[in-house]
Amino acid sequence: MSANWFRRRFLPGGPLPAPRPPRPRASPVPYRRPRFLRGSGSSPGTADASCRPDARPVRSPVRGRALPWNAGYAEIINAEKSEFNEDQAACGKLCIRRFEFGVEEDQEWLTLCPEEFLTGHYWALFDGHGGPAAAILAANTLHSCLRQQLEAVVEGMVATQPPMHLSGHCIRPSDPQFVEEKGIRAEDLVVGALESAFQECDEVIGRELEASGQVGGCTALVAVTLQGKLYVANAGDSRAILVRRDEVRPLSSEFTPETERQRIQQLAFLYPELLAGEFTRLEFPRRLKGDDLGQKVLFRDHHMSGWSYKCVEQSDLKYPLIHGQGRQARLLGTLAVSRGLGDHQLKVLDTNIQLKPFLLSVPQVTVLDMDQLEPQEEDVVVMATDGLWDVLSNEQVARLVRSFLPGNREDPHRFSELAQMLIHSTQGKDDSPTQEGQVSYDDVSVFVIPLHNQGQGRSSH
Amino acid sequence: MSANWFRRRFLPGGPLPAPRPPRPRASPVPYRRPRFLRGSGSSPGTADASCRPDARPVRSPVRGRALPWNAGYAEIINAEKSEFNEDQAACGKLCIRRFEFGVEEDQEWLTLCPEEFLTGHYWALFDGHGGPAAAILAANTLHSCLRQQLEAVVEGMVATQPPMHLSGHCIRPSDPQFVEEKGIRAEDLVVGALESAFQECDEVIGRELEASGQVGGCTALVAVTLQGKLYVANAGDSRAILVRRDEVRPLSSEFTPETERQRIQQLAFLYPELLAGEFTRLEFPRRLKGDDLGQKVLFRDHHMSGWSYKCVEQSDLKYPLIHGQGRQARLLGTLAVSRGLGDHQLKVLDTNIQLKPFLLSVPQVTVLDMDQLEPQEEDVVVMATDGLWDVLSNEQVARLVRSFLPGNREDPHRFSELAQMLIHSTQGKDDSPTQEGQVSYDDVSVFVIPLHNQGQGRSSH
Repeated sequence: MSANWFRRRFLPGGPLPAPRPPRPRASPVPYRRPRFLRGSGSSPGTADASCRPDARPVRSPVRGRALPWNAGYAEIINAEKSEFNEDQAACGKLCIRRFEFGVEEDQEWLTLCPEEFLTGHYWALFDGHGGPAAAILAANTLHSCLRQQLEAVVEGMVATQPPMHLSGHCIRPSDPQFVEEKGIRAEDLVVGALESAFQECDEVIGRELEASGQVGGCTALVAVTLQGKLYVANAGDSRAILVRRDEVRPLSSEFTPETERQRIQQLAFLYPELLAGEFTRLEFPRRLKGDDLGQKVLFRDHHMSGWSYKCVEQSDLKYPLIHGQGRQARLLGTLAVSRGLGDHQLKVLDTNIQLKPFLLSVPQVTVLDMDQLEPQEEDVVVMATDGLWDVLSNEQVARLVRSFLPGNREDPHRFSELAQMLIHSTQGKDDSPTQEGQVSYDDVSVFVIPLHNQGQGRSSH
Repeated sequence: MSANWFRRRFLPGGPLPAPRPPRPRASPVPYRRPRFLRGSGSSPGTADASCRPDARPVRSPVRGRALPWNAGYAEIINAEKSEFNEDQAACGKLCIRRFEFGVEEDQEWLTLCPEEFLTGHYWALFDGHGGPAAAILAANTLHSCLRQQLEAVVEGMVATQPPMHLSGHCIRPSDPQFVEEKGIRAEDLVVGALESAFQECDEVIGRELEASGQVGGCTALVAVTLQGKLYVANAGDSRAILVRRDEVRPLSSEFTPETERQRIQQLAFLYPELLAGEFTRLEFPRRLKGDDLGQKVLFRDHHMSGWSYKCVEQSDLKYPLIHGQGRQARLLGTLAVSRGLGDHQLKVLDTNIQLKPFLLSVPQVTVLDMDQLEPQEEDVVVMATDGLWDVLSNEQVARLVRSFLPGNREDPHRFSELAQMLIHSTQGKDDSPTQEGQVSYDDVSVFVIPLHNQGQGRSSH
């Protein structure tokens, strides 16, 4: 991204000094949490742990290098589900150059001021499935896509109000009024840039995986500080929360087959051919069997947030489009997330039914005004992959943050130690604060981002 | 609905003693807020008031009859936009009969207990457009659809937990566990019944309008109390709020082309033929013209909640799928709401482009647990059509409620007086609390529903 850009990768035992190519297709890795229950029993699938009795969590005790800016710390643990870590992380300084419009150059864009114009910070977590290929590509690519998208609109971002025309010329006198009435602000351009960057990165991953004969997908959770605001963009089931002394605030929502049920069912309603006659769009409490035929059973369709009863017909006995609940919920019996990057080639096992039409690469973006927030010294954002949140609630993480930071004010590595401690808490130790001593057998990655002084990015241009 | 069922209709001058048929198509009423600006200027349309200089608000001073139950009061005002009031209201006691499953009757349903089994209350407001036909049909029909839908699932509603099979028989021992894991509660069946009732009523209206050669549509806002809970179902731009001494809580969201932009754009993306090459799916701050060609202008597409810039092409000069903002926002230049009942025949003026594919009849349902709420004597729900909310904010209405009720504790008609006073406040009187003395030129209908004692419905069976 720039001279200041760097990223780190972790494998069991320590960080990789240099990027390694993703695994070739010749030795495919099973898709994350594969659970296509065609023809099997009607009970929900077992948890990851029990379906991987050989899973042995290996904590990576690597301490991060001192970061050149106030980045906090990423701690990543590999549950050895695959040879290479399916969790990937990236962070760095975000340097936006300014392009100015050359009026006399026949509406060409000229780089008049190529040096850094606007700076911010970037953190990203990618939780891969079907191997680490997509996650590695995303960690290598997404920040570049974002920088390009931001540079394309930076003139609008630094204006008091984004102009109707990027050239800044007012074609009609009432144009500023139209922009005002729509309530369009500079932050909407950053949100738009994040949305476009995710989509562009998804296209790059699709091309790269196809060209190299690889497969896989990943979730993506990105935090960006820019012009005094924090942007959190999420596509998948990772999560970011804000922890302050008196407040715990979710900064993202998870996108899973359950949370996006209505969108997914609606698509299957509009395009039934996507199910190839092998799945039923309807949701039932469990998979139906022959002895349910003719009975009135609980069901939900795409337009319903409530439940009703329907008389079971033969077609209702097909495998459900979305099946299971909680961590066991699967889209087309295959995938546990409904948004993310990659998966262009992913098909339901032994069929030609594609998953990609049901997946969105576009993130949901939350904006936090740090100038308004006036962050205190121990206000942090905790970003983590689902491995953490499966065993720790937001409130438990907040309690750990609040109990750890005040006692370690003099430690220059305290945010790193906190990230490490959070991961330690997922490993089922005696002193673990997890409910009923739950243990995470998934890869776990955590960023702890101190917010104090982050709001000063506004003055960087 | 039952012997206790009644409904009232209002016309200027007083309530109609008997239902009157909707207007025949021979004298069509212009669609509400028609504003198809094909080829006209690019500025947003003017407000209703200014486009109807002849609009003369006529307040209907009719006081409601004493209601046989604690129903509050509906006050309705007709702005004389059409001969018959486009606002229609209905309220009554909701009497659900119980059907029991006849095990030995070859899975037939028998009415073993035809008398009332479960009772609740029902209030509904319908804001018509294109004439009152759809609103009148909805006021005559929706409660019957709802009763039927509720009666079909009442066995599940009164169980501790809705059974997987409506018969109550457990086909598999683990069935209750599946229902428990999905978190399905009795209230989900009422939500499902409301959703299905709205859809069924929409189908009835479609058939009835076609058979009688009439046209039109309406919004629908329904409140139901049942088993200690208040359900608010909304499809359109009416609104319900809860007002308590220390709290104002919205109980519904408005569904307009603006609030449902992404859903509507997404449909046009999937089915571009719905726009017949005459509209552009993209949103711009204003309608683009020839001199915008080649410029980079602000835009949003279906996947974006933020904004970006795009280079204007010829196809971007088409009329926008959604145009204008706030009260002026229109779907296909025609309609100000995106959910409701009816409009089956509605087309864009002088074209064959249909509106109905973009409209949803399904409501969003909010559930309020009145047992938990422990309503005080002056806690009320205010339901009103957009004529009220266009000129009074939630907070202004709450202030009026709180200033009015305590001083009128002895008045048995105080909730009626309050509804009347709220409508009075929209008519631009000197003592009006509206911002900048705004006046509503739209029909206005208000229900004030006292919540005290409504939570006792649970004991009615």
